[in-house]
Amino acid sequence: MKTQLYSFWRSSAAFRVRIALNLKGLGYEVIPVHIVKSGGAQNADDYAKKNPNRLVPLYTDGNHSIHQSLAIVEYLEEIQANPPLLPESLIDRAWVRAIAMDIAIEIHPLNNLRVLRYLMKNLGINAEAKDAWYQHWMLLGLTSLETQLSTDSRVGRFACGGQPGLIDICLVPQIFNALSTKMDMTAYPTLMRIYAECMTLPAFIDASWEKQIDAEGSNPFMPPEN
Amino acid sequence: MKTQLYSFWRSSAAFRVRIALNLKGLGYEVIPVHIVKSGGAQNADDYAKKNPNRLVPLYTDGNHSIHQSLAIVEYLEEIQANPPLLPESLIDRAWVRAIAMDIAIEIHPLNNLRVLRYLMKNLGINAEAKDAWYQHWMLLGLTSLETQLSTDSRVGRFACGGQPGLIDICLVPQIFNALSTKMDMTAYPTLMRIYAECMTLPAFIDASWEKQIDAEGSNPFMPPEN
Repeated sequence: MKTQLYSFWRSSAAFRVRIALNLKGLGYEVIPVHIVKSGGAQNADDYAKKNPNRLVPLYTDGNHSIHQSLAIVEYLEEIQANPPLLPESLIDRAWVRAIAMDIAIEIHPLNNLRVLRYLMKNLGINAEAKDAWYQHWMLLGLTSLETQLSTDSRVGRFACGGQPGLIDICLVPQIFNALSTKMDMTAYPTLMRIYAECMTLPAFIDASWEKQIDAEGSNPFMPPEN
Repeated sequence: MKTQLYSFWRSSAAFRVRIALNLKGLGYEVIPVHIVKSGGAQNADDYAKKNPNRLVPLYTDGNHSIHQSLAIVEYLEEIQANPPLLPESLIDRAWVRAIAMDIAIEIHPLNNLRVLRYLMKNLGINAEAKDAWYQHWMLLGLTSLETQLSTDSRVGRFACGGQPGLIDICLVPQIFNALSTKMDMTAYPTLMRIYAECMTLPAFIDASWEKQIDAEGSNPFMPPEN
């Protein structure tokens, strides 16, 4: 059975896995799960049976299913070593995982849809305060990332050396989110340089929002040359 | 130079690494970083130089530093294979990582101190609404975990088989948090059974809140037999 990925076009977590699958050259079929429209299709009981945490992405090879984007990426790395998404040196692998988690743990969970919904519906936060919340965690996280990536000798054309890997996989979807809010990105030249490098590669372009079969509207913030 | 761990007694992320180091039998010195008291010592500039995301834990062997608890645990697994914290089978490794991330990504980042502070100080949420927020994400996360762990044949004495590993390392600190809020845990018999198993082991007991050199007050919810 062909590999399938339950995905939503704007989901950063699903976007990470799409990039990883593309970089590995592994074919897959996207099964769209609409997490925005009322209630969210991922809350339907049939999807919850597949993924009890009711989130996307969910990867399946027909026999096994895996949820959590970083667990899926680590699995892809273990079943197919090339091209590697983690460096060889153990301390470098730890560094890459830590930076990736700075995005996946410290920024993204605070700004995803179910959290923003809770802020507005359950806590009665207005749109302005919700946007301030979003920007606060984004700014805190991106500032830390810029500090780390602008000063580390491991950074090359991509976040770790000359080939794209786990950090880039997490960074690009986060930058998509930042750009979609029209955030001023001038404070993050290293992140934006790496983002632009990534967005020259088909693996990233093909995984991006506007290329998805469930995409809605256009993607106004792709670099003009793409 | 001896391994050092920048830690805070109640930090779930630091707690995870303390357990992992203990399970591996690796000696370490705890350097307390007080993240609660006004401003938070982790925000001091000297600590931010060590760890730009200003969070605990931070692991260092004198030559290298690693932040992000799960990145540290993966590193410990790679530098010292025994006892293993991840199973051998690739699909089982993915499952273990995914469940661990269900805790580390879907529950913990929403309920940590800096987020609760923002809710109260920046959004003006009262204590009751803050507690409801806390319980909401805890309940959602623990319900998903109970569903997954109560129905999976990989669960044994511990979360994956007969030896403690990555899931247990993440689960126990989360249960400490739940118990500290006096949450009703009757809906989570599988999680509480695994928690009780873990808390019979010195690696978990020695890593726990009340055993830390920077602990304040007693820990009222340790099982009585401990």
